[in-house]
Amino acid sequence: MLIRLATKRDSDPIWTIIGPTIRAGETYALDRDLSRADALAYWMGDDRETFVAEEDGLILGTYYIRANQAGGGRHVCNCGYMTHAAASGKGVARRMHEHSLAHAGASGFRAMQFNFVISSNERAVCLWKRLGFQVVGTLPEAFLHPSKGYVDALVMFRSL
Amino acid sequence: MLIRLATKRDSDPIWTIIGPTIRAGETYALDRDLSRADALAYWMGDDRETFVAEEDGLILGTYYIRANQAGGGRHVCNCGYMTHAAASGKGVARRMHEHSLAHAGASGFRAMQFNFVISSNERAVCLWKRLGFQVVGTLPEAFLHPSKGYVDALVMFRSL
Repeated sequence: MLIRLATKRDSDPIWTIIGPTIRAGETYALDRDLSRADALAYWMGDDRETFVAEEDGLILGTYYIRANQAGGGRHVCNCGYMTHAAASGKGVARRMHEHSLAHAGASGFRAMQFNFVISSNERAVCLWKRLGFQVVGTLPEAFLHPSKGYVDALVMFRSL
Repeated sequence: MLIRLATKRDSDPIWTIIGPTIRAGETYALDRDLSRADALAYWMGDDRETFVAEEDGLILGTYYIRANQAGGGRHVCNCGYMTHAAASGKGVARRMHEHSLAHAGASGFRAMQFNFVISSNERAVCLWKRLGFQVVGTLPEAFLHPSKGYVDALVMFRSL
């Protein structure tokens, strides 16, 4: 699996990954009806670096990394990861995460923060915990899940 | 004290309030060298409502309110408040905060969240606690204070 910087030519495969996740509205606090253009502008914005995980010419996943805050908060990064539904369970998220940790360290970031991990997304919460993240905050009923109703969101953090 | 929606004509007095706070870099995670135009674009952005606190024709403070997240997180609001240095200690922040709570409730928000309260900003932390906020998260050394070095940032939250 090759993890490399995304280019404009990756827009189509990236949209096939992030589109269904955004439309489902279960794991990211993004408007479910976000247009393709707005979704790609968000995921591949100028304020972040966007990577893709590629295997045999297929894009299996994508992630971004950015400074989580400006000014005095610029030394903590934030990432978002999404895996193609058809590639779920193959360790793509884990591989992207390992890549992001190494890239964050090389970029001079001192810590990584996830601002809004939906507590019902147990798979993600378990993965981040296994990979050294701690829940440093719980936002009570901060996310309206389309089928589960109001659920907590977690703030997760790890030093690099 | 009148608290009203800000207009473009308030740009000058708003800049005299937010400019020094941004330049000081002690209480907000914003780039200290942010230009006047970028600072006003941030503070008065299309994604938020911006208010000013006015007394005897003078603008003593300003605050914004916005949804803290999109999609399933849209029911929690986020605010930022700044008081003119010359009006410090007159209860302007408190008055703006009370206004923001009422406005948030009327706008249908269910909770208010501060994402990044600098722990060394004890005056703000105390005020928010007195006004019903709880520290729901601590981000270790997430802010580089210009004179104190790395300090924690707090996530504060209250239901409405």
